[in-house]
Amino acid sequence: MKSVVLTQLNQVLQIAESSKPELAVGQVLVMIKSAALNHRDVFIQKGMYAGIKVPVILGSDGAGKVTETFNDSHADWINKEVIINPGLNWGGNEKHQAKDYIIMGTPTNGTFAQYVSVSAELIHPKPAHLNWNEAAALPLAGVTAYRALMVQGNLQKNDKVLITGIGGGVAQMALQFAIANGNEVWVTTSNPDKLQKAIAMGARGGIDYKQDNWHKDLIKQAGEFDVIIESACGEGFGKVIDCCKPGGTVVIFGGTVGNIVNIVPAKIFWRQISIIGSTMGSNQDFAEMLSFVNKHQIKPIVSHVFNLEQAQEALDLLATGNQFGKIVLKIS
Amino acid sequence: MKSVVLTQLNQVLQIAESSKPELAVGQVLVMIKSAALNHRDVFIQKGMYAGIKVPVILGSDGAGKVTETFNDSHADWINKEVIINPGLNWGGNEKHQAKDYIIMGTPTNGTFAQYVSVSAELIHPKPAHLNWNEAAALPLAGVTAYRALMVQGNLQKNDKVLITGIGGGVAQMALQFAIANGNEVWVTTSNPDKLQKAIAMGARGGIDYKQDNWHKDLIKQAGEFDVIIESACGEGFGKVIDCCKPGGTVVIFGGTVGNIVNIVPAKIFWRQISIIGSTMGSNQDFAEMLSFVNKHQIKPIVSHVFNLEQAQEALDLLATGNQFGKIVLKIS
Repeated sequence: MKSVVLTQLNQVLQIAESSKPELAVGQVLVMIKSAALNHRDVFIQKGMYAGIKVPVILGSDGAGKVTETFNDSHADWINKEVIINPGLNWGGNEKHQAKDYIIMGTPTNGTFAQYVSVSAELIHPKPAHLNWNEAAALPLAGVTAYRALMVQGNLQKNDKVLITGIGGGVAQMALQFAIANGNEVWVTTSNPDKLQKAIAMGARGGIDYKQDNWHKDLIKQAGEFDVIIESACGEGFGKVIDCCKPGGTVVIFGGTVGNIVNIVPAKIFWRQISIIGSTMGSNQDFAEMLSFVNKHQIKPIVSHVFNLEQAQEALDLLATGNQFGKIVLKIS
Repeated sequence: MKSVVLTQLNQVLQIAESSKPELAVGQVLVMIKSAALNHRDVFIQKGMYAGIKVPVILGSDGAGKVTETFNDSHADWINKEVIINPGLNWGGNEKHQAKDYIIMGTPTNGTFAQYVSVSAELIHPKPAHLNWNEAAALPLAGVTAYRALMVQGNLQKNDKVLITGIGGGVAQMALQFAIANGNEVWVTTSNPDKLQKAIAMGARGGIDYKQDNWHKDLIKQAGEFDVIIESACGEGFGKVIDCCKPGGTVVIFGGTVGNIVNIVPAKIFWRQISIIGSTMGSNQDFAEMLSFVNKHQIKPIVSHVFNLEQAQEALDLLATGNQFGKIVLKIS
């Protein structure tokens, strides 16, 4: 089979030929129809996580057909169209992942390949309303957005929502989910084109976070927010907290800008604000996310589609941040 | 009646003679038997809050007997022994206080007086197992500790608890509540004598937070914590987060050391930690706190008892931080 292999950190991805993966107990073989990229793949290529072992087939997101199962167990999955939950070993506690939790595509081989072996517990029926590219775009961003918004953020029907950095894949999924849920949603972005796209998707409005006092201007327009979905942190995090209603919740699922600094404690305790960390999601979160996507017939936004051989080009595009929507590899 | 009046910011408290307070609709008159001090009183004297108006009778904590009611409404309270919830206008949302929420003893006159007028809604029966000094020691520290631990911290039976800065009145109440609830509790303090007192009260152990790497030493001894009750913040807050279990909760009810700095976002989001602000408590929290105190026959620790005329001396002692337990004014 063909696959996209990272053979050395900071090196261009290689197209490799190898035999199909062997199956272990409890696993099924999925013939990947489409895979999708995440910033995680860029970070892995650049060696930004500890202990990355190469060679490894990259890719966390994928959808395809089950073609084999181990020793005929789970045989009812054969020929089924599936979407893969890329998170392994979440463990039994819904509040947090276990210590040995990992994500497909490092350390285990991922979805940028014609076939991938995966635990039968982690495959779910592909939503029927999604084509392969849309289905592949869903897993990691979808489960991360769902957990942040619905589980950790405990979103309620009448909550007003702010999603920062709407250029990101998780942010866009969160926008789609909150709008489908009937909430009023506002966004931040430094890109006027992305703001217009978010508004076209149903956002009420937004603001450029590079403006001084963007938070004050936003509050003037929109009022304060019940739930904020944030992944930048850094020096601007205090302004994000200022946008939160007393008793409201700021969910952090990333920290792309850097460390949190200069937070006045009274802004948290006097206003009784909750700052809640969220990462990825459990298999239960994944199943609930799929159920929500099916119920509301949500379609992830696909920005660009590449061939498997163009994986490096696709990854370079992702790193620029110029796309709006997920970048997909069409594999078979 | 005699009262303790702050006539000017940064000036010594004055003993004044005045007529009893007039009652407004819905109010009752309480003859104060004992009052208790809070750091809040020190901060007000030093002008550390915005918009303090003088002259004002200080004091948020008090217990006594109802001697009059407005126009005979609430007449069933007459001669009853009561404890006062010092928080007015919490409002209808249990998640946070309303904008016009205030605490007795600034801007309204407080409990360092022979009589105080107070809304009938805010008086509660004095727990029968407490003497007047113990009852007076309970309100503000008790409701703050209860909300932080039980409501915002959502303490569960098997949770391991860390309470930082055990010298503080709220921290000590939280220690008593968590121990009464059957939890394993650890503390931090820079004072070995206070550590011994906390252990005598039932804490499993503790550590000096002035040691480098106190958090690592503590985790070695105790493991990580499900619920942490914190009121220092400042540069050390990152170490407090490090002490928290994945999926655990850090409740902040103060920030005596200063701004939160240099928090690595991944320590919050990857470990799915909740940082939750808490301040004072609603009237419902107050009632639940009293019910908990009655059920477990908890007695607040009284460190020192002064006369009303010694209020300044009592406040000066509080400011030193050398006491362990509440400082009480015996009034009648």
